[in-house]
Amino acid sequence: MRRIRVIGIGPGDPDQVTLEAVAAMHSVAYFVVADKGPDDPLLEARRELLKRHVGSAAQVVAVRDPERDRADPADYRGAVSDWHEARAEAYERVILQQPGDVGFLVWGDPAFYDSTIRIVERVLARGNVEAEWDVIPGISSLQLLAARHRIVLHEIGQPITVTTARKLREAVDAGADNILVMLSARIDLDGFDEWHIWWGANLGTEHERLVAGPVADVAAEIDEARAATKADAGWVMDAYLLRR
Amino acid sequence: MRRIRVIGIGPGDPDQVTLEAVAAMHSVAYFVVADKGPDDPLLEARRELLKRHVGSAAQVVAVRDPERDRADPADYRGAVSDWHEARAEAYERVILQQPGDVGFLVWGDPAFYDSTIRIVERVLARGNVEAEWDVIPGISSLQLLAARHRIVLHEIGQPITVTTARKLREAVDAGADNILVMLSARIDLDGFDEWHIWWGANLGTEHERLVAGPVADVAAEIDEARAATKADAGWVMDAYLLRR
Ligand SMILES: C[S@@+](CC[C@H](N)C(=O)[O-])C[C@H]1O[C@@H](n2cnc3c(N)ncnc32)[C@H](O)[C@@H]1O
Ligand SMILES: C[S@@+](CC[C@H](N)C(=O)[O-])C[C@H]1O[C@@H](n2cnc3c(N)ncnc32)[C@H](O)[C@@H]1O
Repeated sequence: MRRIRVIGIGPGDPDQVTLEAVAAMHSVAYFVVADKGPDDPLLEARRELLKRHVGSAAQVVAVRDPERDRADPADYRGAVSDWHEARAEAYERVILQQPGDVGFLVWGDPAFYDSTIRIVERVLARGNVEAEWDVIPGISSLQLLAARHRIVLHEIGQPITVTTARKLREAVDAGADNILVMLSARIDLDGFDEWHIWWGANLGTEHERLVAGPVADVAAEIDEARAATKADAGWVMDAYLLRR
Repeated sequence: MRRIRVIGIGPGDPDQVTLEAVAAMHSVAYFVVADKGPDDPLLEARRELLKRHVGSAAQVVAVRDPERDRADPADYRGAVSDWHEARAEAYERVILQQPGDVGFLVWGDPAFYDSTIRIVERVLARGNVEAEWDVIPGISSLQLLAARHRIVLHEIGQPITVTTARKLREAVDAGADNILVMLSARIDLDGFDEWHIWWGANLGTEHERLVAGPVADVAAEIDEARAATKADAGWVMDAYLLRR
């Protein structure tokens, strides 16, 4: 039986992969990797990772990501779902063409804000590819954020809300007072003056930056650090913890 | 300058540690490990892990965990705080006696429901030990729960609440509909009949068990699996995702 393996590779540092992930990388015939367009920085990072852990003979099939329809922001889930189907079709084509076990390299941990698991399910549900599949956990960016700031992600015995920048206000309205935020297109800290923030960008890479402090004191510094990271690295991904 | 390293070692499987964690284990002179009493199963698991990754010469100082005062359940945080101080004193004694860099092995990831970071802070705040310190993230049990069930921990773009069994009802009352639960002394699913559950015990160990399904259908099966895990392994630790 063929195997499809969804492998978490951590948020950037090639040493932040598990021994299990390295063994899984060695076990597959080739890797399917999403390609978001020319100079996709994560594509390059994945190639580096494979060179390091598998060797330069590692087979990578970069699949150009279909465009996501951003026309109707109200139908976010519908648009994402269409996009998943388009990706499933693209991956299916590769898998049917090329025999052997398949690895998907997932940035961070596949369990957080990543579509690979859902797309593999769709590939299999389409019924043309027959395979067993498994998931190898990886270090998530939110864990590296905590490690770099040397914090626990909650106060003693208290809850954590993990959400997206898009849904941050909803979490606050529901009473959450300890919120991890991912997927920010920009940082809007209006109304958080009484909160504390731990922020990190491009964690695990040479362009990593950290800022922490009361929001009122450090909001401007974060804006600058975010712009500087983008200028230096060519891309920026950041995550932060807000605590009231 | 001496170094204290807080090292996440994953939830049980010695292959689920990162290359960075293995390197950190090699870099320290000895390990301080909490010992919860005779036959502490996690103490044994940590020794196995060290044997595997560092060799049988790895120096382990097991520090008997002070008793936690459970007399006044209303003062949970106060009791935990006293207990942290007692542990800080015990660790300080070891660190002052024994020179060299110190490693703390933390089950899962140090960022989730673990006191090591807070205790190291206290040791340093006491002013008798001078050291640099860092934190190495590890795979958390909640990530392995997701990987084994091959799920993403949230619906597309939606939030996750991570909390303890003790605080589960509060999360529901606040409107959370996707809740990861840790630290259960027992499982009480009363009132969750309309929810779906993904449950896992002793994840990453030879006694791992998984159950998933509508709560109404699988609640009894989870009770049995939990008791069976405890009978087989001598201990049980479980985590679960509840989704409305
Ligand atoms: C599509 S999500 C993928 C999350 C990933 N599965 C994980 O577990 O980290 C992308 C978001 O993750 C966060 N992220 C990923 N890598 C990061 C890094 N190296 N530094 C900071 N944030 C990162 C950012 O919030 C980014 O917008
Ligand atoms: C003191 S907390 C430590 C959590 C740990 N830092 C982590 O990241 O997994 C202990 C709780 O973690 C969960 N846990 C730890 N190891 C586990 C395992 N192997 N399988 C299932 N749950 C586990 C259980 O909810 C348990 O009550």
